[in-house]
Amino acid sequence: MNDGVDIDDIEGKVSYAEVRDAWYVICTTDELGRSKPLSRKLHRQPLVVFRGPGGKPGVLLDRCAHRNVPLSLGRVVDCQVECPYHGWRYDTEGDCRKIPGLLGKTELPRRAVPQYPCREQDGYVWIWGNPDAEPIGEPYRPPKLDEPGYHTARKMVTAKGTLHAVAENALDVPHTAFLHKGLFRGTGTTNEIKAVVTRDETSVTCEYIGEPRPEGLVGRVLSPSGGVVTHFDRFILPSIAQVEYGIGKENHIIITSFCTPEEPFFTRLYAVVTWRMRFPAPVVRAVLDPVATSIFAQDAKMLDIQTKHVTRFGGERYTSTEIDLLGPQIWRLIKRAAEGRGAKPDDEVYRREVRFEA
Amino acid sequence: MNDGVDIDDIEGKVSYAEVRDAWYVICTTDELGRSKPLSRKLHRQPLVVFRGPGGKPGVLLDRCAHRNVPLSLGRVVDCQVECPYHGWRYDTEGDCRKIPGLLGKTELPRRAVPQYPCREQDGYVWIWGNPDAEPIGEPYRPPKLDEPGYHTARKMVTAKGTLHAVAENALDVPHTAFLHKGLFRGTGTTNEIKAVVTRDETSVTCEYIGEPRPEGLVGRVLSPSGGVVTHFDRFILPSIAQVEYGIGKENHIIITSFCTPEEPFFTRLYAVVTWRMRFPAPVVRAVLDPVATSIFAQDAKMLDIQTKHVTRFGGERYTSTEIDLLGPQIWRLIKRAAEGRGAKPDDEVYRREVRFEA
Amino acid sequence: MNDGVDIDDIEGKVSYAEVRDAWYVICTTDELGRSKPLSRKLHRQPLVVFRGPGGKPGVLLDRCAHRNVPLSLGRVVDCQVECPYHGWRYDTEGDCRKIPGLLGKTELPRRAVPQYPCREQDGYVWIWGNPDAEPIGEPYRPPKLDEPGYHTARKMVTAKGTLHAVAENALDVPHTAFLHKGLFRGTGTTNEIKAVVTRDETSVTCEYIGEPRPEGLVGRVLSPSGGVVTHFDRFILPSIAQVEYGIGKENHIIITSFCTPEEPFFTRLYAVVTWRMRFPAPVVRAVLDPVATSIFAQDAKMLDIQTKHVTRFGGERYTSTEIDLLGPQIWRLIKRAAEGRGAKPDDEVYRREVRFEA
Repeated sequence: MNDGVDIDDIEGKVSYAEVRDAWYVICTTDELGRSKPLSRKLHRQPLVVFRGPGGKPGVLLDRCAHRNVPLSLGRVVDCQVECPYHGWRYDTEGDCRKIPGLLGKTELPRRAVPQYPCREQDGYVWIWGNPDAEPIGEPYRPPKLDEPGYHTARKMVTAKGTLHAVAENALDVPHTAFLHKGLFRGTGTTNEIKAVVTRDETSVTCEYIGEPRPEGLVGRVLSPSGGVVTHFDRFILPSIAQVEYGIGKENHIIITSFCTPEEPFFTRLYAVVTWRMRFPAPVVRAVLDPVATSIFAQDAKMLDIQTKHVTRFGGERYTSTEIDLLGPQIWRLIKRAAEGRGAKPDDEVYRREVRFEA
Repeated sequence: MNDGVDIDDIEGKVSYAEVRDAWYVICTTDELGRSKPLSRKLHRQPLVVFRGPGGKPGVLLDRCAHRNVPLSLGRVVDCQVECPYHGWRYDTEGDCRKIPGLLGKTELPRRAVPQYPCREQDGYVWIWGNPDAEPIGEPYRPPKLDEPGYHTARKMVTAKGTLHAVAENALDVPHTAFLHKGLFRGTGTTNEIKAVVTRDETSVTCEYIGEPRPEGLVGRVLSPSGGVVTHFDRFILPSIAQVEYGIGKENHIIITSFCTPEEPFFTRLYAVVTWRMRFPAPVVRAVLDPVATSIFAQDAKMLDIQTKHVTRFGGERYTSTEIDLLGPQIWRLIKRAAEGRGAKPDDEVYRREVRFEA
Repeated sequence: MNDGVDIDDIEGKVSYAEVRDAWYVICTTDELGRSKPLSRKLHRQPLVVFRGPGGKPGVLLDRCAHRNVPLSLGRVVDCQVECPYHGWRYDTEGDCRKIPGLLGKTELPRRAVPQYPCREQDGYVWIWGNPDAEPIGEPYRPPKLDEPGYHTARKMVTAKGTLHAVAENALDVPHTAFLHKGLFRGTGTTNEIKAVVTRDETSVTCEYIGEPRPEGLVGRVLSPSGGVVTHFDRFILPSIAQVEYGIGKENHIIITSFCTPEEPFFTRLYAVVTWRMRFPAPVVRAVLDPVATSIFAQDAKMLDIQTKHVTRFGGERYTSTEIDLLGPQIWRLIKRAAEGRGAKPDDEVYRREVRFEA
């Protein structure tokens, strides 16, 4: 996955840190069946996901306590996951419930495997990033998901880059006019735009003021009649990137990407798009899907290139300008959260205005 | 071979240790011709095997003293192995006997390469694991090999696992009913069996009492008329795994596996099966060969999976139960022998009884 | 390129050292166009080569100062190299000249990338191995290049070996009779030859006295009528290997190999052959080209084998004899130059005579 790069060799030299006490999407409801366990990762830990009694999902460290074989290569039998080597079975709490051949009790603490708290909601299975711990709060709910007049589309993609690089890319405006030229922006004249960045303890938001209606294909679909544009880009701890557009009165679109840092340089994105528009949903879907696929393919390729070069040089050596509006803020939030530090008093009122061309 | 895993990174975290002062099989008599050298490994050291005067085998460190090219890529000329780069030649003692172009003496100590004492017996070439040392004792001889009424079959296979994992797997009863279900065991009802484990300075033996005639295909071939079963599993230092079955009066089968730890996670097995049975040898061979091949393929795949996962986690974290009868004992023997320690006084009388289901 | 071997793990155990204050060939004039940048390496550093104003070449560290993407994957626009991610542009001095979207000044020191001084001469682009430094002296000029009566052929090849291993191989006589048997030497009787090795501060030369006309195919082409042979092998710091032959009065051939150590175990060779001979240049070319290709393929294969084995063993363990005339001297020159040490007084008069068979 990360091509043999050992994060230990470049720790402290890349924008990677692990926020453990938080909720992450580990898979979708549709991916998780009843008879086959699913193999996933969070923060370098292999995990096995399966359904227990009543279909309730369970998530365990994917390593049999006996001889360390991955449980995800076995089967789900009687709502328990079974190791393919000697047939040990575990329930959704991680307790060992069967050891073929052994007479007597099986559920000893040293035979249990670490268990991750989980929730299933809105079509996703979420896990708490700290095994055997008590979760604080509940998973994030994407806005407008079930509101009348709104439609929904979902997509899962992966990128070979750190959570930070992926989230920065998802919320970065300047590269869109260059890398995605013709698809998204950059086909016409430029305007001077004002950006207002505000950051609190758990999120950072950028509001763009004076932005013209987007040009190119996407723009023409969104608002054929023109109209005032409202645009917010947000990062919400630990790993949610959100883009919200309003164009005129009739168009509203929110793209929420739940990012899961599987490995330092491998991130999975579960994107959910909710919208309200003049056009029928099937038409919007038919137009947006190929555009979104193209944009993401270009981004994924660039993230892969960036990651390979960063690891080749043994770490990042970034220079930011004032128009890198969110990247440095995102890293600050992740880093401080990973260190268990809250916001400093002087952070509470962080607000910055920047003018740039787009 | 071991997919880039560096044992130094996880030393002390996996059940791997090198017993140097001992005999190992390095190849079979049939594998070693007269004109082509053979490339093999023991304990991570590349070795070259070739035949010297009178066909007597020689085993040297596979690295030319001059510019470090592998001798095994050259030829055997006049009972000497010749480096393919500059044509330096070595005899079976490791002495340099020819340097093309050089005037004067060639046999200087600094031009010699390390030589491993060797023996050829019973169809195998054995080497002493410590180069340029004096061997103690002679290589092990498989029982009943040339006894009247006994037949023999041989097989060489490799597995991506430590010597310990491979030997434990070869002698482990509980996994057979699960992993090899249908082929070997696990098709019928279970019985309670008593196992008696005894360990001395150089070996550990498990005797099974009350074992029913094996079910499934193998069992029907071994003893169509039923009969009392005797069953011993043995590990003999440094690397011999042996399974001995008697079924009724007429059936006796001994499977001896000489294991060669080429690398920490790559082990070669030379298995020799000797048997006496009611059926003609060709029939036994025809039935046993595909069954043995299937069983070994399943074991090799599982060992590979286990090894990959252990290295992914940076080491083993095993939990054993009382029915892991031999694995922990095998590791104890290897570890102590590698450290050059003999048995402690209180070890001499080690004996344990365990009851389990099979 | 070097198959995952980390030089840091075996530094000090292989004949590899980096002479930074020196000129190296980075590409040929023909390889470098106007619109596409070229990706190359020197001493493990990825470099981007492109043409600036007036076609003058520029060489920069191949890493955008912004988000560390390789510039060599972008385009050359208006004599500047453009990053493919956000469109930052750099001139041949390494200064940032454009940042799309940013209002105001772009050329800040922290936005510049390291620049390597360069020269274009004799069909090659040369760079000074120390970025942002002032070069001392000018690049080496191959002798006889434009002299009347002389012809020229060029070839670029790569080898998986250290600069030292490659240069030693290029200038080593003993292996030719063995590895290249039939192509170059070794087809007839042997003669005793005298070699005189002299070394000064920046080069080492070996003169061969008493050498017969080369046998085999090459010899017959060079001098059908026989004649006195003069033969010099030279290594010139930091990385030039040169073979000079005279056969009779009419034949003179000089093979100069400019070696570029891209990585510890990956060296690029730019060879230029200049000659004066009885035969028409097209005939010489037609005969020499396939022979040179065969010889180099054999050498490249052997260097690859040698490198793999050296890294497998964690370093070199060479033994040299008196007929390893140049190898140890080459390493001494490179090592001392890399350490910035000049020749000791007692080195100035180094001279040695050796007799050997060829």
